[in-house]
Amino acid sequence: MRTPRKGASRKRTRRYNAGLPELRKDPITGRWVIIATGRAQRPSDFSRESVPPPTRGGFCPFCYGNESKTPPEILAYRQDGQANTPGWSLRVVPSKFPALRVEGELNRQGEGMFDRMNGIGAHEVIIESPEHESTMSELPDKQVKEVLWALRSRVLDLRQDRRLRFAVLFKNHGVTAGATLQHSHSQLIALPVIPKRVREEIDGAKAYFDYKERCIYCDMVHQETQATVRLILETDRFVVLSPYAARFPFETWIVPRRHESHFEESEATTVENLAWVLRETLRKMDKVLERPAYNFMIHTAPIQEGHLAH
Amino acid sequence: MRTPRKGASRKRTRRYNAGLPELRKDPITGRWVIIATGRAQRPSDFSRESVPPPTRGGFCPFCYGNESKTPPEILAYRQDGQANTPGWSLRVVPSKFPALRVEGELNRQGEGMFDRMNGIGAHEVIIESPEHESTMSELPDKQVKEVLWALRSRVLDLRQDRRLRFAVLFKNHGVTAGATLQHSHSQLIALPVIPKRVREEIDGAKAYFDYKERCIYCDMVHQETQATVRLILETDRFVVLSPYAARFPFETWIVPRRHESHFEESEATTVENLAWVLRETLRKMDKVLERPAYNFMIHTAPIQEGHLAH
Repeated sequence: MRTPRKGASRKRTRRYNAGLPELRKDPITGRWVIIATGRAQRPSDFSRESVPPPTRGGFCPFCYGNESKTPPEILAYRQDGQANTPGWSLRVVPSKFPALRVEGELNRQGEGMFDRMNGIGAHEVIIESPEHESTMSELPDKQVKEVLWALRSRVLDLRQDRRLRFAVLFKNHGVTAGATLQHSHSQLIALPVIPKRVREEIDGAKAYFDYKERCIYCDMVHQETQATVRLILETDRFVVLSPYAARFPFETWIVPRRHESHFEESEATTVENLAWVLRETLRKMDKVLERPAYNFMIHTAPIQEGHLAH
Repeated sequence: MRTPRKGASRKRTRRYNAGLPELRKDPITGRWVIIATGRAQRPSDFSRESVPPPTRGGFCPFCYGNESKTPPEILAYRQDGQANTPGWSLRVVPSKFPALRVEGELNRQGEGMFDRMNGIGAHEVIIESPEHESTMSELPDKQVKEVLWALRSRVLDLRQDRRLRFAVLFKNHGVTAGATLQHSHSQLIALPVIPKRVREEIDGAKAYFDYKERCIYCDMVHQETQATVRLILETDRFVVLSPYAARFPFETWIVPRRHESHFEESEATTVENLAWVLRETLRKMDKVLERPAYNFMIHTAPIQEGHLAH
């Protein structure tokens, strides 16, 4: 039995001190993982005690008047006022505890059999309303539409950066879903890699297309609207369904009726209808499950790839 | 806007009443999912209230004298006594709330574009000790060895059933890791499909082998024992390491030094050494992380496939 030698500790210290996130590839599965040393400074991360639920009445950096407590805004929809002052209905700001950093080079390198690159990317927070207590299901239609519109605008801007390949658009609602702040917000993470799950989904849809010459999502919309057993809601533009092979209870998919591969290329009418469908779906969940914690994610095609028929 | 029609409800009712688990394939990613309606009867499943931590002193079906409260034992190591009475040091019993059932035909079928089969498989519980309060890290070496030996024996038995393709061998320790009973136990689920994650791992190792003509795990053992920065422990037979692209803090791998693809074919010396290494690793975790909740899983090759060089 031997105990570890300490030979390479100097190198490790240097990297950890820099505090820069790093992307590392699992050589077996090909999955890229963010090794985000800096985020350990967040109040609730890596804590071994249970995290208390967000308290009402405490200080909130997303409320009116506290604009200076976030990094300067990237985008805002406002009735009046200057940037980074009250008067906005929605703000997009860089995350204060970013999983990735925008500055620098990717610097792809090998470490023996392993592969790494710098954790380059964008991590932005969409503050959905000046109201501290409103949840997305309680916001007016106009406000939900602004959230989707802001996500769309940010992706259109970020995809001009050719280093970035995929935009993860998501929301964690409620403590048990991973939210650390109560004030309603969504997040956008633009990555220099395509997540493995996304690649699987695209490859699977491609395999189906190669075999059938039809889009698997369009076929699913067709079958589910005929069968109706798993149908939750439908409009002219969207179908809300409980997927056939759901991975967890109450998993819900909102699928477009018209074939579209890129969320950021949605027309205004589509965004408007999606806002209504999303809010209505969340309201139904609130009613049936008594205001549950939830995660949602927008599944969309890689931002540097053209329209995908599959 | 239309609301769902109720046309197919008869069919749905029939299936749900049967209470038999079903395997359904996600047509996009190819992932098989267990739709386990029966397990909703378990005390803590689907509960919307928080689950209280297991209480000490309450009734425990895994303790001495309560043998009749579990289904009859499949395997037991005992000093004396008859089957299903005290005198054992380890018992293997069918799960009382099985994710899958052993009886019946697979009955693979299509439902339009979707694919399904009956949820055929085995779900067994390994009761690791008569002691209610002992955790695996506190058990004597001999006892941990018996646990591994029991898992090995059960897989050798189950792989004679040609319907079964993969054995998931795992342990959930602690409430936050998903354990519903405190009394130390492991689980075995034998599946008629190969889980997607396992297929990815094998395919990834195969791709590396095709390119390099070497096993990726053997290369990793070689590099990590040279570099030592991620090395936790090593013996003649095993290397314990923190993986280069860890997906979560304190992820730990125990990798065999000698190339072996099937856990159930391990020699006695290997099992003995693994018992020591596993217990020592758990003790280190207990010390550093103050007795954390954890999951462990044995990654092994599909049971119907021969020795894999990759």
